[in-house]
Formats: sequence, structure tokens, C-alpha cells
Amino acid sequence: MTGRPGAAEAGFGEVLEAGGPRLAELLERTEARLAEVARSHGDTLGRHAGATLAAGGKRLRPILLFLCAGEATSDALVDAAAAVELLHMATLVHDDVLDRAPLRRGRPTVFATDGPAAATATGDLLFSRSFAELLRSRDPEAVRDLSRASSALARGELMQRADAWSADVPEERYLERCVLKTGRLFEAACRLGARLGDPGPAAADALGTFGAAVGLAFQIFDDVLDVSGPVERTGKHRGTDLLDGTVTLPLILARRADSGLRSLDLRAEVRTPEAAEAVCDRIAATGALTAARERALEHVAAAKAALDEASLPDRTRRALELVADGVVARYA
Amino acid sequence: MTGRPGAAEAGFGEVLEAGGPRLAELLERTEARLAEVARSHGDTLGRHAGATLAAGGKRLRPILLFLCAGEATSDALVDAAAAVELLHMATLVHDDVLDRAPLRRGRPTVFATDGPAAATATGDLLFSRSFAELLRSRDPEAVRDLSRASSALARGELMQRADAWSADVPEERYLERCVLKTGRLFEAACRLGARLGDPGPAAADALGTFGAAVGLAFQIFDDVLDVSGPVERTGKHRGTDLLDGTVTLPLILARRADSGLRSLDLRAEVRTPEAAEAVCDRIAATGALTAARERALEHVAAAKAALDEASLPDRTRRALELVADGVVARYA
Repeated sequence: MTGRPGAAEAGFGEVLEAGGPRLAELLERTEARLAEVARSHGDTLGRHAGATLAAGGKRLRPILLFLCAGEATSDALVDAAAAVELLHMATLVHDDVLDRAPLRRGRPTVFATDGPAAATATGDLLFSRSFAELLRSRDPEAVRDLSRASSALARGELMQRADAWSADVPEERYLERCVLKTGRLFEAACRLGARLGDPGPAAADALGTFGAAVGLAFQIFDDVLDVSGPVERTGKHRGTDLLDGTVTLPLILARRADSGLRSLDLRAEVRTPEAAEAVCDRIAATGALTAARERALEHVAAAKAALDEASLPDRTRRALELVADGVVARYA
Repeated sequence: MTGRPGAAEAGFGEVLEAGGPRLAELLERTEARLAEVARSHGDTLGRHAGATLAAGGKRLRPILLFLCAGEATSDALVDAAAAVELLHMATLVHDDVLDRAPLRRGRPTVFATDGPAAATATGDLLFSRSFAELLRSRDPEAVRDLSRASSALARGELMQRADAWSADVPEERYLERCVLKTGRLFEAACRLGARLGDPGPAAADALGTFGAAVGLAFQIFDDVLDVSGPVERTGKHRGTDLLDGTVTLPLILARRADSGLRSLDLRAEVRTPEAAEAVCDRIAATGALTAARERALEHVAAAKAALDEASLPDRTRRALELVADGVVARYA
């Protein structure tokens, strides 16, 4: 595993291939823009934001945005992709404060190097810069898409914290949280790609529906990976969500089959990584991981079906389908 | 002291009077809008955001915005005022997390009642809603003004944390921090009022300069109040900034006259409210409070002079001058 797992390492190599030189070039311009944002704030701020930006990631949201834009390559698309990625990063930096996380993607977090105050302010700065980037597009509807996603992220986070350690989170509420925490920003990325790219505003709803379903599948599969590993690919111990008190679909489904899991008190009984791994094994033994993967696949299918409503060139549609398939085949 | 010190109690009664029924009505509409924002997020979120909004405040930024708008009374102005106030509140909620503050304006903070995670997410939500409110105006330049202020707030916060406990913060750096933390949002409020109101975009620069200078004076005077009290009006112990490690103008100026203060190690020697009050007395003894108040008055004069560049009706100008005078006469 490298210090910076990108899209290819995460299993999106085929997507990058399908996107061709256009996608590669747009992603390069996005990296340059993100680096510029980091530099533009001088000394302390640049150092904090820079570390966060450099930690990189899959850039999955920019990839979706560019693919939804067809063959367009305008600067407005790069602005929007940078905006979406900055918003995503802002939430990661704040999450790291709340989780007191020492590392992210193998690098020290801003929280770890500079403390909670600097990390909170860095997240706020990334937030502001996200809107500033999108404002270059001078398209109020585009900014509105981002603003909706941004509210949803905060509401999803609040919901997750409110439900922490709660023994009986219903599946519906878990799904609502996934939509808010992940679905809405994927949706915004796709809407922005459509709106500012070749498909145009008329295709924003269909591509937004596609994005929301892909995001939901992504989050469910992420929650499966937290229980299943493989640890050497995900870079995290199994069961970190359990240690956090975050109840996700695998546990919700496993509880129906295993009465011992039904009466499990996470806060009292799952306090060490070893205890968390033991619960992961027990969840796996119920078949809940397979069932949760199937739910994720259903959302992938729904995402692909939503593409029928957008008249897309074959090449664009094929690339988007590869992303949808990719989110539930990561690290396979 | 009431649980909710408003503009009148803080010494802005004359301003409210000069603003007449128009200002009163616009402020009422702003309160209604803020209450609507709090309600619109249901359950947990509404409760958190609601508590913060209800805690109220002077609404000084909305007042400035409305006064800069001349006689206009459009909904766009109310949107903008709500946006500015929501952004201000977002930073207060995050500040309370960082300061681990139990109370604000006599009420328990979100941090105190629901913990750091809920408070961080609540701040993020208020942030997002701030942009959402302003987007109703469909004016990209207006959103840009807000975005600039929002970046500045985060940068000012980062600067303050970077300089904490630092023995020799230069006066210039202190002033830069005040501009970022306070001046830019006052500036944005005035620019938005001009842009969306009667004076129009052409007057935005002059009124923005006025706002920035008023904000700077406000912050300097706030820092004086932290040292001088009166405690029964400010509702805080004297010297809370010192206990935080935040070095402000009174200490910077006092150090020039008192070698004992020059060698003072805040982190080691100022650890109790009593020790902080003793340092406050020592700062006052050097005459630094008078000198700092004079600096604030210079910025008030600069603010008033900036109004020459905007051709304003006498009534508007007079009301703005009252605000400028008011920020350095609070709690007198």
C-alpha cells in the first residue's frame, strides 16, 4: 500500500482508462487548483490546508463530476470539482477532530500535528474556499447544489453522533444517514457535472439521482469494508466503527439473526480493537456481510437504471456504469 | 443584565431610534427568518441550532447592513442579514468548542449540552445555511462578499491560535488578526447592504471601508473591555483573554511601559481568574487602556471619513455615524 492510495489503487483503474486523456487532464488541472488553494493562504494556514490536500485520496467525486459532463473540459468544471473535493476534505478534517484521529491515509492529521483549534479552523477555511471556487462559475444554481450538499453533510454528522451507541438504530434511519453523509455530495458532484457540462441543466436531475444512488452504495460498502477488511488494503483495523459507537448496516442485519448481538452493549463490551474484531467475526458468521453487499448492489442497479432518463453518449454511460460497479468492488 | 442583551442594552439604543420603524421592522423579519432556519432542520439539529439562535445578541451586523441599504426594505436584504448573522453564529459555536465554554450570553453552549461533536456539526450546519440564505438573492457578487468574509474568519482564528501564549505579538500582527476575525464580516455586511439596497454596487467599496474600520474599532474596544470590565455589564470575568493565552492591544501597549509585563510568561504565571485580574490591574496602571481606546477612536474617525466617498442621505449617514460611535461607547 502506498502512502496515497489513488483511484487506480482503490480499484478504479478501469474508470480512469475509460475516461481517457480527457479525464486524466481534468484531474491534473484539479490537483493544480487544489495546490493553488493551499498555497494562497500563506504560512500557518497553507501548511495545514496543504497537508490535508496533499494527503489526497481517490478524487472519486471529481471523477464523477467530470464523467457526468460528457466531453466538456471547461475551467468551470475544474472549479466545481475543486469545490466538491474541498467540501469533502473540510468534513474529513472536522471528523478527525471529533474522532481524535492520529492518522488519515497513513499521514498525521491536522488534529494530530496542530491540535483541535487549528484543525477546526482549517476545516472552516476549506469550507469557505469550497464556495469561493464554485463562485467562479457565477452560476447561483450550481452554488445552491453545493450548499444543499453542505447542509446535508452537517445534518448527517449530527444524526450519526445523536445515534452513537444506540442499540436499535432502524435500517431506515441508517439509510437516511448514509444519504445525508455521502449520497448528497455524490449527487451534487453529478448535478454540477451535468449542469456545467455537455448534458446541461435538463440532465441534472437524472444524473443527480444516479449520483445519490452511487453514494449510498459507496457508503454501505464502506461500512461492510470496516467489518470485513482486508486490513492490508483498507489501512484500518476492522471494527473501527464499532469502537466509535457507530452502528452500521452489517450489525443492524446481523442482530436479526444473532440474539447475542441484539443484546450487545457496544459502549460497555466493545472497548478494545480485539473486542471489536471478535464482534466483526460474529457479524460475518451471520451472513450479514453478504446481505449488506447485496443491498449495496441493489443501489448500484438503481443508479444504472437512472441513467436511462439522461440521454448520454454510449462512452459516457459506459464510464459512469464502471464507477457504479467500482464502488462495490473496491479493494477486491 | 437580562439573559439576552440586545442592541439597546449594549448601548445602541440611539441607533435603533435613528433607524426608526423601518429598521425595527427589518430586524423583526430577520428574527423570524432565523427562527425559520432553526425550525427547518427538525429534531436534533433544530434543537442545537435553535438554542444558538435564541441566545440572540446585538444583531449589530444586520443593523449595519440595513443602515447601509438606505431606505430599501426588500426580502433580499433580510436574506443577506440572516446570512451574515448565521455566519457569525457558526464561528461562535466553533469558538465555544475550542474554548470549552460552558456558557455564552448566560445560556449553556451547544458544546456544554451536547458535546464537541454536535457543536462542531451545528457550526458546520449554520455555515451552510448562511450561504443558502444569501443564495436566495441570486447575486454571485453578494455570495462572493460572504465567502471572502468566511475565509477571513477562519484565517483569523488560525492566526489567533498560532499566536497563543506568544510573548511578543507585534501590534501590526494583532491588527491584522482583528481585521480578519472581525473587520471582514462587518465589511461584508456593509457591502451587502449597499449592493442590495438603495446606494447600489457603486457605493459598496466606500461603505465596505466604513464597515471594516468600524469592525476594527469594535474588536479593539472588545479587547479593552476584557481587561477593564465592568464585569456586571460584560458578563465575563476580567482577563479571560489572558487565561486563553490571547495577547491583545492593552497588553501589547502596557508591555512597552512595564518591564515586569514584558517578561510575564502567560502560560506559567496566569493560570487563575485571580492572577488574570491582577494582570488586568497592572495593565490599567500603565495607561494602556486609555491608549488602546484612543486607537479604537482613530478607527472610528477613519470609518466616518470613509462615508465622504459614498453620497448618502443625511439620515443614513447620521445613523451610521451613531453605530461607529456606539462600538466604542458600549457598556459605558
